[in-house]
Amino acid sequence: MMEPVSLPAIPRLALCGGTHGNELSGVYLVREWQRKKAEKEVESVDVVTVIANPRAVQQCRRYIEQDLNRCFTSAILSIPVSDETPYEIVRAQELATLLGPRGSDGAVDLICDLHNTTANMGLCLITNSDCDWIALHIYKHVQTKMSSMPVRLLSLNLTPDESYYLASVGKHDVSIEIGPQPHGLVRADILSSMKEGVQLILEWIRLFNSGTEFEGGVVEVYTHVKNIDYPRDPETQDLTAIIHPQLQDRDFCLLSPGDPLFLSFSGETVVYKGEEPLYPIFVNESAYYEKGTALVLTRMKKVEIPPLRVKKSGEGE
Amino acid sequence: MMEPVSLPAIPRLALCGGTHGNELSGVYLVREWQRKKAEKEVESVDVVTVIANPRAVQQCRRYIEQDLNRCFTSAILSIPVSDETPYEIVRAQELATLLGPRGSDGAVDLICDLHNTTANMGLCLITNSDCDWIALHIYKHVQTKMSSMPVRLLSLNLTPDESYYLASVGKHDVSIEIGPQPHGLVRADILSSMKEGVQLILEWIRLFNSGTEFEGGVVEVYTHVKNIDYPRDPETQDLTAIIHPQLQDRDFCLLSPGDPLFLSFSGETVVYKGEEPLYPIFVNESAYYEKGTALVLTRMKKVEIPPLRVKKSGEGE
Repeated sequence: MMEPVSLPAIPRLALCGGTHGNELSGVYLVREWQRKKAEKEVESVDVVTVIANPRAVQQCRRYIEQDLNRCFTSAILSIPVSDETPYEIVRAQELATLLGPRGSDGAVDLICDLHNTTANMGLCLITNSDCDWIALHIYKHVQTKMSSMPVRLLSLNLTPDESYYLASVGKHDVSIEIGPQPHGLVRADILSSMKEGVQLILEWIRLFNSGTEFEGGVVEVYTHVKNIDYPRDPETQDLTAIIHPQLQDRDFCLLSPGDPLFLSFSGETVVYKGEEPLYPIFVNESAYYEKGTALVLTRMKKVEIPPLRVKKSGEGE
Repeated sequence: MMEPVSLPAIPRLALCGGTHGNELSGVYLVREWQRKKAEKEVESVDVVTVIANPRAVQQCRRYIEQDLNRCFTSAILSIPVSDETPYEIVRAQELATLLGPRGSDGAVDLICDLHNTTANMGLCLITNSDCDWIALHIYKHVQTKMSSMPVRLLSLNLTPDESYYLASVGKHDVSIEIGPQPHGLVRADILSSMKEGVQLILEWIRLFNSGTEFEGGVVEVYTHVKNIDYPRDPETQDLTAIIHPQLQDRDFCLLSPGDPLFLSFSGETVVYKGEEPLYPIFVNESAYYEKGTALVLTRMKKVEIPPLRVKKSGEGE
């Protein structure tokens, strides 16, 4: 049994949508939140709502010049801005100031950035650290309470400087990646599950802030191992094979050496030749064709999390 | 029983993909065909292969400046070209010359244009006329033989001048619309079904050209009635409701007055208020959000088709 831990309250949550302008569940959920706020349906937690890439949302494209959710590394955030600076770099710097700066006392306590995927990933929470007890307790809560789809957590384990994604500028980050949903449309079932996920995150924060003590336990965390590209023609870079029908839609199902990975256009099966069984995610995500990623392989590990409660005012470190 | 009909052979088929640059099944199927041709795997039918919008394919977007598959009206095809003419208008005029001109002796005998939809439409053949016996016999053949998904036929019934789509420049047109598949990716199962559909069309043409007499019969044809838009905010034009979860994925399932149509963001159900039960198609097609179309309503009718065989050389009209 781990020793109980106490951590500062989470007074402020940033709920972000439209970081990718064609991932519409988050766009519509954030707009709904903004409407509710206008109607004075106030939450006890201070929820800041942000449409992260409004130009891309307006054009219903992932991005205008470059992928905003890869622009939050310390290197890109410190590029001097000129008239030629790509829109997304300018916007990333604005957002990093608004919601961060990363590592500062003024940073938002928790950022939840809302994404869709064409892959059959259910509700996948994404956080950086697999020893951020706030994120892991939120995961445990959402996974236990969620009724409409399976819930997993992916941890990225990046250093602060190399953290490339919007939510990394907050003190804590728990983003939602939900699918399958084609980009550029809204499905009522997926929107409803995303809403349920956000409500459960807020429920946990309210309980935590008001002094509830959460039991420890063990959670399953998926960690990034490597990205696998499609087989391509060495000259043209065109795909020569696609995701094998036996792998399609099987995100988070163990892939063992010898299992089918790709099916070539001439009908041959390409098998997984790794030495270790791993869990594929983002299988056939349309936005990753241009990134050279057909799927992402992850390892699953069990993480013991300690009992957790809020640090009372005056309580020492 | 209808009298037998004889019609000229179909020596030349145009197989087009990438008319919408992010509908990838057709792009990859046409490329495979081109590879096979290069390897001298020759068909007895002359198959012309075309990537219709190569710039859009290269950028994996539906179109560059405007929807190519709305550019084939007589009015647009006769616009004088200048340096400012949108790319797709220039390209439409090139294609209309290459595969048409519409109504001329030189036009390709049959055009099959390959499309994807995010809607759950299975394999939907699209043709202009519901009294084109070539198209309707091909439909009967594909519907009878297709093993992997349901097959229907939509007829548009446009005049030649107002026919806006690529395949309309051929002597006959039978296009394939297949889904559900998100745009910008290839699913092996959908590609395989599209390939099966194309092979069945070719099989029918070979049988027809070689003198097989086809029995008459009755086929179910869906005809366009009207497009329905999403409920929108009158000021901002933003959606105020989305496809109801009970309608989602139910393309070609009869929609009766009083059935749920939309679910508003505030949770209210908007029902179908038409007087006549109709068949919805293109339900939640992502490319139609910008066109103001949430779904298309169609009427189903039974069409009797005559026995058909090829016209022998020297046979009169």
